[in-house]
Amino acid sequence: MAEPETMNQLNPAPFYLDCDTGIDDALALAYLIATPRANLVGIGTVSGNVSAAAGARNTLDLLKFAGHPDIPVAIGAHDPQNGVFRGGAPHVHGDNGIGGVDLIRSQHQPVQGSAPELLVQLAREYAGELRIVAIGPLTNIAEALRMEPKLPELIAEITVMGGAALAPGNITPVAEANFANDPEAAADVMAADWNMTLVPLDVTMTSVLEESHRQELLASPHPVSRALGEMLGHYFGFYVEIFGRPCAAMHDPLAAAIAVRGVEPALAPTIRVEVDTTSGPGRGQTVCDMRGLYVGYPDQRGARCRVVLSIAEEFPPHLLSTLQADRF
Amino acid sequence: MAEPETMNQLNPAPFYLDCDTGIDDALALAYLIATPRANLVGIGTVSGNVSAAAGARNTLDLLKFAGHPDIPVAIGAHDPQNGVFRGGAPHVHGDNGIGGVDLIRSQHQPVQGSAPELLVQLAREYAGELRIVAIGPLTNIAEALRMEPKLPELIAEITVMGGAALAPGNITPVAEANFANDPEAAADVMAADWNMTLVPLDVTMTSVLEESHRQELLASPHPVSRALGEMLGHYFGFYVEIFGRPCAAMHDPLAAAIAVRGVEPALAPTIRVEVDTTSGPGRGQTVCDMRGLYVGYPDQRGARCRVVLSIAEEFPPHLLSTLQADRF
Repeated sequence: MAEPETMNQLNPAPFYLDCDTGIDDALALAYLIATPRANLVGIGTVSGNVSAAAGARNTLDLLKFAGHPDIPVAIGAHDPQNGVFRGGAPHVHGDNGIGGVDLIRSQHQPVQGSAPELLVQLAREYAGELRIVAIGPLTNIAEALRMEPKLPELIAEITVMGGAALAPGNITPVAEANFANDPEAAADVMAADWNMTLVPLDVTMTSVLEESHRQELLASPHPVSRALGEMLGHYFGFYVEIFGRPCAAMHDPLAAAIAVRGVEPALAPTIRVEVDTTSGPGRGQTVCDMRGLYVGYPDQRGARCRVVLSIAEEFPPHLLSTLQADRF
Repeated sequence: MAEPETMNQLNPAPFYLDCDTGIDDALALAYLIATPRANLVGIGTVSGNVSAAAGARNTLDLLKFAGHPDIPVAIGAHDPQNGVFRGGAPHVHGDNGIGGVDLIRSQHQPVQGSAPELLVQLAREYAGELRIVAIGPLTNIAEALRMEPKLPELIAEITVMGGAALAPGNITPVAEANFANDPEAAADVMAADWNMTLVPLDVTMTSVLEESHRQELLASPHPVSRALGEMLGHYFGFYVEIFGRPCAAMHDPLAAAIAVRGVEPALAPTIRVEVDTTSGPGRGQTVCDMRGLYVGYPDQRGARCRVVLSIAEEFPPHLLSTLQADRF
C-alpha cells in the first residue's frame, strides 16, 4: 500500500494514465489535473472508446485546454493483443470520442515512443513511486510487462477500471468493455504480481452523475467544466437505455479518484480474479471469486487483487468540487 | 403457463421429478409427496450429489418411509454427457447422500427402463399435462430430449434448480453444481423450446433453514420430518463455512415449491440464458443476461427462460408447515 506521506498534497505521487479518451476518460483526465493529490507525469493512449491515435489527439487538446499542454502523451496499441480494433464506441462517446465537442487543437504532438515505452521509461525514472491508472483496454500495460518484466517491482501500485464482479457486464451479459476489448492483455495484467486495485462495474455503475450535476458543470465559471458538461450530454443520451433516465456512470473518474485516495473504498476485498480468454459466452469476463459474499468477503489466500465493491461516500459531490476547485 | 384449474388441490397436476438424492433432494421429495398441489407420477435419478444408483436407493427408501412405495423410480445417467461421474459430494451430503441417516430399506426396486425412458413414457401418457421438476444435473432431461424431440410440446412446463445469475457459484466462482456437473446437457436443456423456469442460487441462497427450523423438525410428531431434521445436521455442518453459522440453503425444496405454486416468485424476469460449455474458468456458468438490472428487468426479446430472483414470502414457514401437514 502507499505510504501516507507520499500521498499528501505537498508532494503528490507521480502518476501515469493509460486511457482511450472517451468522455469519461476526459473527466478522469480533468480530475487528475485538478486534484492536488496527483502529479500526472505521462499519458499513454490505447484503442478502446476511440482509436489510440484519436484518443491521443483528444488528450492533447484537453491538456492544452486545461492549461497543462506539456504533459507527455504517447500513442499506444492500435489493435488488441490477439485481434483488430473494431472502431470503438461512437454511439456512446460520439464520433470524435468527446461527445462532438470541438476543442481548440493543441499544437503539441504525441511523443516519439510508444505508450508502453513511455510507461517503462517513467517506471524507471520514478522507480518505486510511479502509480498507474489504467482506464482503457489493457493492451499497453501488457506490452509494457513484456518489455520490462520487472515492471511490477518498479511500480508502487496500479489501479484498473474494468471488469464486473457480481454486476452484469456492459458489452456482453458478463463482460465489461475494457476487458472484453482485449481479454488476453487483461489476463496478462491480472496475472502479474503487483499491488493492484480493480474498480469494476459493481461500484462504477452506482457512481452516477445526474442531470442536476451536469447542469452544475454547464453553469460553472470554469471553461473546462462547461466543456465536460457539454460532452456529458451525449453520454447521458446513451445511458437512457441503461438507467431509464439521462445520467451517466462515472467509470473512469471513479478509478482515478480511488487511485489518488480522493475517495476511500468501503468494501474492497482482496480476492482471486481470472480473466476468461475463451471464445465462449464468458469471453472477457472477470471471473471474480465472490463466494465470500455470505460472510462479508474475507480476503482470500493466494489472491492479489483488491476489488472495490463500494465506496465510503457519494462520488458526484467529490468529483464536481474537485473539477471546480480552480486548479486549471 | 399452467391453467389455474389444473393446479388446484382437487386435481393436482402430474409431476415427474429428476433428482440426485441428496439431503435437499430428500426434502424436495418429501415436500412433493406432502403437498396437495402435486401428483408425483414418476421419479428419475441422475448422478450428482451421489451416483444415480445410490440416489435411486435413497429415493425408494424415502418413498417407503413416506408411505408412497409404489411411485416408480428409474435409474438414469451415471455419467455426464461428455465425461465421467466424479463421486459426488459426500462432504456436503454424507457418505450415503442423506447425512448418514439409516432408513429402513424398501423392498421395491427401480423400474426396468432408464430415467429418460420413464420421462418420455410419462410425457406421452400425460401429454400436455406433465410437469418436470429437475433438481440434479440435467443429463437425463437432455437424453430424453434426444429420445423424443417433441418432448417440449408434450410437457406443460419444466422447473430447473440450478445456475447462478448474479449470485456467486457454489462449485466454482461462477458455476453452480447441477450445471457444472454436466454443462453440455444443461446447454441442450436450456436451448430447448419449452416453458421453463430456472431457480438459481440467487434465490435459493436466500431461502435458508436455520437451526431453530431444524429443531422444529426434530421435535415433530412425524417420523419423516424427524429423519429430515437428522439429515440436515450433516448439511448444516457443511454450510458453516459458507454462511458462518449452522443453517442450509433450500435449493431443491424451493424449486419444487415454485413448480407446484406453493410459493410465488416476486421478481422473475424472462431473460436470455446461455450455458458456458468451454473449458475456461466460466465452464458450467449460466450466462444470464442481467443487464436489465437498472430498469427492473424487463422481459427480453428472444428469451424463453423465466429466472426466479426472489420470492414473495419467507420460504421456511411454508416448507415446514407443508412437511408437517400429516399427509404422509
